[in-house]
Amino acid sequence: MPSIHDLPTPLPIVDADALQHNLATMAALRPGTRLRPHVKAHKCTSLAAEQVRHGHLGFTCATPREVMGMAAAGVGNDLLLANETLDVHRLTQMADIERATPGLRITVAVDSEATVDAAVDAGIKEVLIDVNIGLPRCGCSPSQAGRLADYARRRGLSVRGTMGYEGHLMMVLDPIEQKAKVDAAVDLLMAAHTDVGGELVSSGGTGTFHLHDRVDEVQAGSYALMDTQYGTRDQPFRQALFIWSTVISVSKDWAVCDAGLKSLSMDHGNPSIADATVWFCSDEHITFAPSAGTGALKVGQRIAVSPAHVDPTLALHDRMVVFRGETPLDEWPIDLRGW
Amino acid sequence: MPSIHDLPTPLPIVDADALQHNLATMAALRPGTRLRPHVKAHKCTSLAAEQVRHGHLGFTCATPREVMGMAAAGVGNDLLLANETLDVHRLTQMADIERATPGLRITVAVDSEATVDAAVDAGIKEVLIDVNIGLPRCGCSPSQAGRLADYARRRGLSVRGTMGYEGHLMMVLDPIEQKAKVDAAVDLLMAAHTDVGGELVSSGGTGTFHLHDRVDEVQAGSYALMDTQYGTRDQPFRQALFIWSTVISVSKDWAVCDAGLKSLSMDHGNPSIADATVWFCSDEHITFAPSAGTGALKVGQRIAVSPAHVDPTLALHDRMVVFRGETPLDEWPIDLRGW
Repeated sequence: MPSIHDLPTPLPIVDADALQHNLATMAALRPGTRLRPHVKAHKCTSLAAEQVRHGHLGFTCATPREVMGMAAAGVGNDLLLANETLDVHRLTQMADIERATPGLRITVAVDSEATVDAAVDAGIKEVLIDVNIGLPRCGCSPSQAGRLADYARRRGLSVRGTMGYEGHLMMVLDPIEQKAKVDAAVDLLMAAHTDVGGELVSSGGTGTFHLHDRVDEVQAGSYALMDTQYGTRDQPFRQALFIWSTVISVSKDWAVCDAGLKSLSMDHGNPSIADATVWFCSDEHITFAPSAGTGALKVGQRIAVSPAHVDPTLALHDRMVVFRGETPLDEWPIDLRGW
Repeated sequence: MPSIHDLPTPLPIVDADALQHNLATMAALRPGTRLRPHVKAHKCTSLAAEQVRHGHLGFTCATPREVMGMAAAGVGNDLLLANETLDVHRLTQMADIERATPGLRITVAVDSEATVDAAVDAGIKEVLIDVNIGLPRCGCSPSQAGRLADYARRRGLSVRGTMGYEGHLMMVLDPIEQKAKVDAAVDLLMAAHTDVGGELVSSGGTGTFHLHDRVDEVQAGSYALMDTQYGTRDQPFRQALFIWSTVISVSKDWAVCDAGLKSLSMDHGNPSIADATVWFCSDEHITFAPSAGTGALKVGQRIAVSPAHVDPTLALHDRMVVFRGETPLDEWPIDLRGW
């Protein structure tokens, strides 16, 4: 029987039971259309197909490539590009795929007249007005949302509703403070939505999914695989993703494995290794000190590395292997990379 | 005539003149075999072919994939895997490619009996003894190098010599302190080499290439494209790489462009934008404040983002476009990604 100890490294591996636990837990808490899973967290149509099996048919995407890859794979029937793009060529490809696919609905976020114009030029039919609700990033000011919706309608677009992302509140640790701040952000969003009209209000993420009782749907993505940053929160999800790695060198005071900056994103800090302290990462190395010393470590043995940030870590890889215990079950292409 | 303002974004773009300046400058300072360019910095056989045109036929690689990709492309005739691997399957593929390619020489770094055994099992013929000269990472202790070379020879391998990497000294800013520390590291390396034997001593990087008068060759890579971290040093190389990006949203106090954590590595900190302060990066966004305010910025305009660390940034992309002025000249696949 093949073993995970025979897999090439570095390689993302997914604990099948932890993944299923996470998908089932979220589907129970936010069933069906109350969740619009964000594919940017995994960039994998095979994993998205598991989310469909758990009842979610609408998906959130961050890039045209994610939208087009999901459409080409036939996964999901309501794809939202929750991001602004001025790329009329790619928007046109998206509009073409929508027209060619019965039952498929593609919606694009807009926050300016220029993004509305790009959508119109490309033949996009439906948009959401993206509203800034506190994170200094995209989104028009709430007071401008109604005016922008009017402009979009004048230009012939159908405005489905409003979205906003309170990304600055994902990691607020005090639950009372977090709830109050999310409530205030949603107040902004709902006020803007009154001006915008339409039937859909979309917001939220894995850090705030449990605080949304007024929006229609939440755009959580990290919950499926998780990472060590979200793992610091008191949430009902388990770490399902690891970077499988081989110990390649053992010295007196430290050891080295073959994962590094090219297999792990560092924007949330160092990755973690159980019962060890990570000293630093190089392009293809992690230097770490096992708590029990290096005596028990063998050159060639495999270890699991826990990423600090799931989304950009998976963007570094072309596949992930799903496993249970020590048995590889399946290989999933990370097929939504790029733009 | 096509313009870089029509290119899709985010996209790595390479200033042809800056690249040629960097390659010519290094080739003048360390001609021919005195430099073994490290392909991990660009993972691009087209760029490596430019380095061949500047007289370097030996290359340094960090992964089996880099070795095999260079061999398959027929670029270089002396490929060094300057890293340890226990992956006998990939090592065997490397040995097979060497046998099948007249004139090609493939050498592997070893720092333990286990890595020697893996090389032997795979049919690898030549190795370098990797010696730790101060960076806590791979490499046997200098005092063990001779013993390991003996072991490798007993097992039938040809030991070409010794390598060591003083990565901890690349960013020592005081030139006198840096020279003294590099000299001390090279003392360790040369002493180990006396015990190891063979004709080759390999060391160094872009941060120390100018300080090596005793080793045979330097393993610099970043000099070709550079990044903002190396750009803080007083070096004769120019920034040649940028991530080309589109402004997608402009607010009163900040703007947002479409590069982010999935197009820029963050291990050396935030990227830079000329005449602007970068506030933070998200998966597909940089939020930044132009020094002159946001009034002059237009949604849809292109801007150049300067990466903080070239190697893992390029590992996020599948191609780079070479340009001069505002004209795209060529597209180079980043074809050595993965392992």
